[in-house]
Amino acid sequence: MEALLTELRAAVGSDAVLTDADVTVAYQRDMMPLAPYGQPLAVVLPSSTEQVQAVVRACAAHRTPIVPRGAGSGLSGAANAIDGCVVLVTTKMNAIVEVDPDNRLAVVEPGVVNLDLRAAVEKHGLFYPPDPSSYDWCTIGGNLSTNAGGLCCVKYGVTTDSVLGVEVVLADGSLLKTGRRTVKGVAGYDLTKLFVGSEGTLGVITRATLALRPLPQAPSTLVATFDTTVAAGAAVARVVREGVVPSLMEIMDRTSIKAVEQYLKTDLNADAALLLCQSDSGGEAARRELAAIEQVCADSGAVLTYVTDDLAEGRDLLTARRSVLMALELYGAWLTDDVCVPRNRIADLIAGCELISAEAGLRIAVTGHAGDGNMHPTIVYDPSSADEFARARAAFDRILGLGLELGGTITGEHGVGKIKREWLATEIGPVGLRVHRGIKQALDPGNLFNPGSMFSP
Amino acid sequence: MEALLTELRAAVGSDAVLTDADVTVAYQRDMMPLAPYGQPLAVVLPSSTEQVQAVVRACAAHRTPIVPRGAGSGLSGAANAIDGCVVLVTTKMNAIVEVDPDNRLAVVEPGVVNLDLRAAVEKHGLFYPPDPSSYDWCTIGGNLSTNAGGLCCVKYGVTTDSVLGVEVVLADGSLLKTGRRTVKGVAGYDLTKLFVGSEGTLGVITRATLALRPLPQAPSTLVATFDTTVAAGAAVARVVREGVVPSLMEIMDRTSIKAVEQYLKTDLNADAALLLCQSDSGGEAARRELAAIEQVCADSGAVLTYVTDDLAEGRDLLTARRSVLMALELYGAWLTDDVCVPRNRIADLIAGCELISAEAGLRIAVTGHAGDGNMHPTIVYDPSSADEFARARAAFDRILGLGLELGGTITGEHGVGKIKREWLATEIGPVGLRVHRGIKQALDPGNLFNPGSMFSP
Repeated sequence: MEALLTELRAAVGSDAVLTDADVTVAYQRDMMPLAPYGQPLAVVLPSSTEQVQAVVRACAAHRTPIVPRGAGSGLSGAANAIDGCVVLVTTKMNAIVEVDPDNRLAVVEPGVVNLDLRAAVEKHGLFYPPDPSSYDWCTIGGNLSTNAGGLCCVKYGVTTDSVLGVEVVLADGSLLKTGRRTVKGVAGYDLTKLFVGSEGTLGVITRATLALRPLPQAPSTLVATFDTTVAAGAAVARVVREGVVPSLMEIMDRTSIKAVEQYLKTDLNADAALLLCQSDSGGEAARRELAAIEQVCADSGAVLTYVTDDLAEGRDLLTARRSVLMALELYGAWLTDDVCVPRNRIADLIAGCELISAEAGLRIAVTGHAGDGNMHPTIVYDPSSADEFARARAAFDRILGLGLELGGTITGEHGVGKIKREWLATEIGPVGLRVHRGIKQALDPGNLFNPGSMFSP
Repeated sequence: MEALLTELRAAVGSDAVLTDADVTVAYQRDMMPLAPYGQPLAVVLPSSTEQVQAVVRACAAHRTPIVPRGAGSGLSGAANAIDGCVVLVTTKMNAIVEVDPDNRLAVVEPGVVNLDLRAAVEKHGLFYPPDPSSYDWCTIGGNLSTNAGGLCCVKYGVTTDSVLGVEVVLADGSLLKTGRRTVKGVAGYDLTKLFVGSEGTLGVITRATLALRPLPQAPSTLVATFDTTVAAGAAVARVVREGVVPSLMEIMDRTSIKAVEQYLKTDLNADAALLLCQSDSGGEAARRELAAIEQVCADSGAVLTYVTDDLAEGRDLLTARRSVLMALELYGAWLTDDVCVPRNRIADLIAGCELISAEAGLRIAVTGHAGDGNMHPTIVYDPSSADEFARARAAFDRILGLGLELGGTITGEHGVGKIKREWLATEIGPVGLRVHRGIKQALDPGNLFNPGSMFSP
């Protein structure tokens, strides 16, 4: 493979081709402990679309698979290396090429960090909604590949809802430009949304045109606590039914609450469940929305409700929600799941997780984006115990089965990657799988990009 | 072909297979006078998914192309018959299978009329946004196939933004189920959005799961008139830039205004351009939004602005906008175009159309969805004059070229169909076309569905 390495060095420069195992280890895997990973032949960090094209052509000629990778914040192993592959890291392509306030769009390279984009467009009074938990270090390229979500989705949707077009290097090195700069457009198949969420299996995204929104008003915050998850679940369902659309609606179960209380050394005054909602509509509209939610919570049996316009107080309450994973590290390592269920089945999901927790003998904290049904049951285990790891893995799978049973999906925002391949096959069935394979074959006949990720060849 | 007709009759019943040319003529073409059309072998009207599967299998066995069709309100010839084909009409599959207010979704068959769905979900306090001009007779199946838009798009997006999943009969008769019932979900490629807008070239949609929104507040309406289109265009651009998102923002040029005044026998008090905006945010929020837009209009040099909360008055103003095409029939036949340009290029588009109009010696009225840049320059011609028709056709093409020159797209909501094939190739380029053909080949290797529509095989 020396010939390939020589070509790669010619393509991107010697400094941008890493082969030392001590260095490449940092690019071998993402944040999902369950996912398999291998030893790459090399890690390359191109600086331009032309360099990506050269890398793709070289790898294609040598039949060496490419695993595209952003910052590695993923939670499905989609960016994990496979043995002998080239990991193509897009972090050096981190230019915000353009912000166009007249048309509320931005053009960016894939290595731009989500938070950097948010800050850059905020200066123009604009807002890029997708806000995955890792927004301070994940990249737009990874967000596009996994169709990332976040807390914003209840009102603003997932990444695909903010993408107008992409540029993608295909398996033969040619450059495909999809989409447009206009807010509407139906010329041809929607290739943009085909590439978004394709987890690096169809090409390498080298540029994206993103739709921006007007910056929303400063958020007002409501917190409500419940002594049963059934009551909290009923409140969520009724908010949906009554047609209130908050800009954020998060739920924490008892285990999450206790962990965060211990971690932040605070008292959340909550027992079985806590709902956290925000409205970014501003003024009277925000007051009306939160008053409606407060009434629904009270009617559903909330123990306590509290509304505040104070930004610092709102931020503190959000910190509680955002601290769950770190708090769980008090107890051990964590394994976070990602199922999305119909919004009237949240209480059933929590009850099911309690049962799985009891049977597995492992702590499972359930937290998530209640407003859109996207829940993250998180299993805590002792990483030094093979037995606990095996039980955690089994519980992880049982939760996926539970999500499907409740009419949901095996992934709301993290993706399939290298851990849910068999579950994808279960969810989409043999016809769906055949169509996936047909599209993959049409676009990547040599199985160059991320082979074995998402579905088996 | 008697063997195929026998199989079709066995599949759907004799009454649902039409072969008499006097009857099939009604299914030969849609509303676009430019598009070619042929003589179908038969028109079939299946009543169920199973019947669609049987029809597809029979046609596949006899290598007879299928042109799927809804109500025929399309404006690109996508549903136009080709010689010897089977036109598969979905209008008999018109059940609203389910409305689920708890999860704000509806499950429908493709033949449901857009207006019937709107009315059915409104009873539950819910709202299905896509509202193409033909909403009182077009079907959801056609809306899905063309990714239809409407007046709502500036705030609520196009059809694809309201689709959670579809069921599609593929070329081998198998049934593909895409998507989900949850609001989020990233399991596998986004096949849903691949089929939406594919104009019947990849399969026959037999069912769809649609996302609904809370019913908005009753609209408040603003009208502003301008004595130059440049001033009106500047107002639109500034509204976008200032981050106000109305629920409707339409523009009419001088020719549209004059035609409507004559048709409705009213005085719109407008000279060169009229902007019509609505806010459905209700109460203080609506007042704030429309006041902001009113200020922008005044600052941009509006001659007159007027705001009303009165619903009847708002409806009357909207009637003026909705009457443009009918009003143009006072002068002759019309040919409506559908380009979408960046929102700060609307005045340039109108100016360009004025030039094209002068050079073609034909009246061109420009009206459209200013808030999203989707404009419908409409050419008036004498259908009995071959020369005028040829000039109209040439003007139609020049407008598409102008749309692309201004950084826009050749279709904002009507689709490519059988009239913009060459223009699609121009817009997406050779790599884009190759990817389109690859996907078509992967899903429909025998070129069974709507061959030659959207792009040449």
